[in-house]
Amino acid sequence: MFNVRQAVILGAGLGARLRGTLDDRPKGFLKLGNRPIVEESIAKLVRTGITDIVIVTGYCHQFYDQLSEKYPFVRTILNPDFATTGSMLSLYTASQSVNSDFLLLESDLVYEYNALQALQHFPMDNCILLSGKTGAGDEVYVGVSDDRVVNMSKRRDDIKCLGGELVGISKISLELYKHMTDLAPEKCKHNSQYQYEDCLVDASDNVAIHYQCIDNLAWIEIDDENHLNKAREKIYPLVEQRDSEIIISKRVERHVLLNPGPATTTDTVKHAMVVNDICPREKEFGDLVEGIRQDLVRVVHGAGVYEAVLFASSGTGAVEACLSSVVPHDKAVLIISNGAYGKRMQQICDGYGISHIDYNIDWGKPVDCNQVAALLEQYQQDISHIALVHHETTVGILNDITTISRTAARFGVEVIVDAMSSYAGIPIDIKDSGIHYLTASANKCIQGMAGLSFVICKKESLEKTKEIKPRNFYFNLYQNYFFFTQKHEMQFTPPVQLFYALRQALNEYFLETEKNREKRYAEMYEVLKKGLQMLGFRFLVEKKYRAKILTAIIEPEDENYCFTEMHDFLYKRGFTIYPGKGAIQNTFRLANMGAITKHDITKFLGHLEEYVVKKDIKLN
Amino acid sequence: MFNVRQAVILGAGLGARLRGTLDDRPKGFLKLGNRPIVEESIAKLVRTGITDIVIVTGYCHQFYDQLSEKYPFVRTILNPDFATTGSMLSLYTASQSVNSDFLLLESDLVYEYNALQALQHFPMDNCILLSGKTGAGDEVYVGVSDDRVVNMSKRRDDIKCLGGELVGISKISLELYKHMTDLAPEKCKHNSQYQYEDCLVDASDNVAIHYQCIDNLAWIEIDDENHLNKAREKIYPLVEQRDSEIIISKRVERHVLLNPGPATTTDTVKHAMVVNDICPREKEFGDLVEGIRQDLVRVVHGAGVYEAVLFASSGTGAVEACLSSVVPHDKAVLIISNGAYGKRMQQICDGYGISHIDYNIDWGKPVDCNQVAALLEQYQQDISHIALVHHETTVGILNDITTISRTAARFGVEVIVDAMSSYAGIPIDIKDSGIHYLTASANKCIQGMAGLSFVICKKESLEKTKEIKPRNFYFNLYQNYFFFTQKHEMQFTPPVQLFYALRQALNEYFLETEKNREKRYAEMYEVLKKGLQMLGFRFLVEKKYRAKILTAIIEPEDENYCFTEMHDFLYKRGFTIYPGKGAIQNTFRLANMGAITKHDITKFLGHLEEYVVKKDIKLN
Repeated sequence: MFNVRQAVILGAGLGARLRGTLDDRPKGFLKLGNRPIVEESIAKLVRTGITDIVIVTGYCHQFYDQLSEKYPFVRTILNPDFATTGSMLSLYTASQSVNSDFLLLESDLVYEYNALQALQHFPMDNCILLSGKTGAGDEVYVGVSDDRVVNMSKRRDDIKCLGGELVGISKISLELYKHMTDLAPEKCKHNSQYQYEDCLVDASDNVAIHYQCIDNLAWIEIDDENHLNKAREKIYPLVEQRDSEIIISKRVERHVLLNPGPATTTDTVKHAMVVNDICPREKEFGDLVEGIRQDLVRVVHGAGVYEAVLFASSGTGAVEACLSSVVPHDKAVLIISNGAYGKRMQQICDGYGISHIDYNIDWGKPVDCNQVAALLEQYQQDISHIALVHHETTVGILNDITTISRTAARFGVEVIVDAMSSYAGIPIDIKDSGIHYLTASANKCIQGMAGLSFVICKKESLEKTKEIKPRNFYFNLYQNYFFFTQKHEMQFTPPVQLFYALRQALNEYFLETEKNREKRYAEMYEVLKKGLQMLGFRFLVEKKYRAKILTAIIEPEDENYCFTEMHDFLYKRGFTIYPGKGAIQNTFRLANMGAITKHDITKFLGHLEEYVVKKDIKLN
Repeated sequence: MFNVRQAVILGAGLGARLRGTLDDRPKGFLKLGNRPIVEESIAKLVRTGITDIVIVTGYCHQFYDQLSEKYPFVRTILNPDFATTGSMLSLYTASQSVNSDFLLLESDLVYEYNALQALQHFPMDNCILLSGKTGAGDEVYVGVSDDRVVNMSKRRDDIKCLGGELVGISKISLELYKHMTDLAPEKCKHNSQYQYEDCLVDASDNVAIHYQCIDNLAWIEIDDENHLNKAREKIYPLVEQRDSEIIISKRVERHVLLNPGPATTTDTVKHAMVVNDICPREKEFGDLVEGIRQDLVRVVHGAGVYEAVLFASSGTGAVEACLSSVVPHDKAVLIISNGAYGKRMQQICDGYGISHIDYNIDWGKPVDCNQVAALLEQYQQDISHIALVHHETTVGILNDITTISRTAARFGVEVIVDAMSSYAGIPIDIKDSGIHYLTASANKCIQGMAGLSFVICKKESLEKTKEIKPRNFYFNLYQNYFFFTQKHEMQFTPPVQLFYALRQALNEYFLETEKNREKRYAEMYEVLKKGLQMLGFRFLVEKKYRAKILTAIIEPEDENYCFTEMHDFLYKRGFTIYPGKGAIQNTFRLANMGAITKHDITKFLGHLEEYVVKKDIKLN
């Protein structure tokens, strides 16, 4: 992701040297192409991922105000003293609206798109963009020392080590901005013409300001008629040509997600979504989908006997499709619940008025198989299906699907397993386990993207559901299945790009192999468990029942502990942790699924320890 | 998208010069890192988007057969005469399995990932990869003339103009491969050691074979002990280092989609999906979603009065959410249908057992507003809602939502509009039109990605639905709304990446402006209409009822006409057209939505004319 999503444009100036040409417009409203130059600048900002643009206005501000009516991502703020003050006061005026790192631009610039890309890709927070020699006549020279900016001047002689010429586009961190706005009031009092460039130099004593120099950057700032002519004749055509040739590329910042899905994905899975547009009714796409359907079944060793039916939905959609489509109207489903996802199956049945018998267990406690057998015995006339969660993501408990399935088989009852967060993370042999329907989604241990879910159905069972009067439309399992097999396409418009991601994720799964994925996850779990124990944390679920994919950790009772603060501390360091959910004791949760390694876990534990020590949290 | 998705690896060879070291393994099973080199090669192929790998085996083929059991995307084919024949016979053996352009590789190569990227990005179909000087001792020198390969030799003196040294990785088109397999039988008869390199040179008389030379490519072919040592000490570490530094970038081939959505998207929308992983329960993501919700409402000018509720689903999901959530159990909905999507609303109601009164019109014919009034009059006690499609995508007719809404208002009936393929293409003022619920999806005229749909609801009406007993779970409109507004997040796991695409698409919509998008679409329609008329095509829908976003064209009666053939002809040229659907006359359809221009339409018309003339289809 591009780091910076906000931009500030300084547009208050009078444009004194262009007064005749401007004819009561701000400089940003000069036109070289079809649109005012500030609108071309805005278009480039949008293209580079900016979603919030603040323009500080002054002279003829109503022009900019009209822009903000036209574009919802543009806001204006008036500097009422624009005629008598320097640019730093304008930048100061924006302080109510600046809430993140931002790109700072002057409004009278014509520049190539690469200028923005260079700053967005620059690895440090604060960066001033410089160029090689322009011969503009009013250049601002930037002096540097090592990799930092140290001074600026319009006189070349003032500069010892020249970094380049100031372009007027910078990346400013919130931290640097705070320093600048702290300095500004006092400085402006003594010098009404205090400029933002001066302030950058003043702030550089306290904050490291880096620079990036692009030697042959196509750009110009338009201050007078000569600039305008040069822009029109030379720079603007060059900018247009260069901007038409860009190949977009980006390095994605790595975030380690320890929330229980959507999980961390590989960069190749991310990039797999970028494909040419394709109509999903084309055979080429149908073939892709068919291959994915087969491989989804292959992951659980069900080839020949099972069929995968995919839905454009979250994982809950697949569970809903299954429950609403397979339970006959005169029968009930026995639902085992020892967490939020068992409970959710009961809620789905309530939504449709499907009869269900509930076996509710304290969240985090194991299923008693004798109890299951007793309930099946008691209600055997009514029950057609039993439904349970394999790995209950709320608490990290692994339910014994094989034993329960065998019990169900004795009573002729079919088995529905929600394997949302175990599929592809814990080996499942679907034939051997005696499961009839298994639900999962693309964004957990299979390491694809959210928005695709699926039910893996025993063909023989699925065929029988054809006779059940539908309870809905979109999630009708049999109808969706029919389209896949008979028409070689998805019944409703598929999320095209997510299929390409899932294709890549499946390839990477098979490349890693079932065994090695399980091993990698298990290793991460061991490292995590040991590290947490060493720190003194305690766990919700008894050791032998843990799935080793998600760990629910009992919240410390120390009053220095605060989940949100701990979360934010770790989030800043690239790790996302997750709150607990309705267990018998308060917990927080850490999942070890996704494209991460035990080294990530070790690094995480280091930060966690740092936090615990810093806050002096007692854990024993 | 990467162009090539298939690869052929030649792995039959004896590895005679490494016999001692090999110890009854094929050369591909030499190990430099953790895995045999052929598995490292396979991993790189997968990374570059290859989904089907054919390995031609011979010596100790069972090693490769085990690979094909391990990896579902690997197939093996045995060349039984491997011991006595050259590599061309091996490549010929693969002909049953080759069904598209492919990458051809030797099995004993160690190479950096960039080698594959270079071929995948190379703009021509046939390309042989070359490198600068290696000093390997058994180099194959490649002679070139202009931009083509003309000969190859192990003797430098045979080469007039040197292109570089042969690496052993090539991109081969199906056309070139056919030439090669045509040549092979005769050539092999005369020369049992006929190599694929010889055949490439022989085929180059008929097919242009290009080359790409990467001067400092890290690569080696392992034929003897010296190579093996050099690989171990120098090349393999260099490959590892380089492969760890890659930034993936790709130029996406442009396809113009004239099917009625998913529509063509901009490259910036495509790339917007590539973001760092993020847990969608984070505030940062909640803010993104909230901004999108507001802007979706803004598109139809409903700010303050309407709320957007998004679903991870196809557009049908939004329609289902609306119908199943807003019609009280004791009331009915009047459904107007003059196409498949009107019909679909009736099917959804059937799925749920919701009472509906149907006003069915021949597909392609306009709604009679008097008839609507008469039906409302007749059933006014029973009807709570009226539902209709704005732009009926089946035929391209635009229904007059404003007049119908005003009629409905007279009877105190609320209005549901399916604006799937008009939203953001045709200006809608939702307040002024008197619509209570409007459904649409992200992948039509708003130019985002498929997999996200939404309902824009009048807040006042939506609040009242809280009291209606739910008919389902996932698509319960009020519950989903509740999560957005009360918890600042989506109820179920959102399709994270599609939200980023929609964010970018909305920005680009506002950047283009409502007026200019309508204008661009209308211009495309005019160019299309004129061009089709000039060719002699006739239209299904009367001119004044056309939405100008989709045109249903009556299929020619000429026996030379065949939709599939026409489709394939145009598809090859980068244009996707769409079949008709159940209208009173047979049609095919062309949509002019998405990130395309009138120049695309002009180009399309040129190809269409080319086809009509070529097939001599009579149109008048």
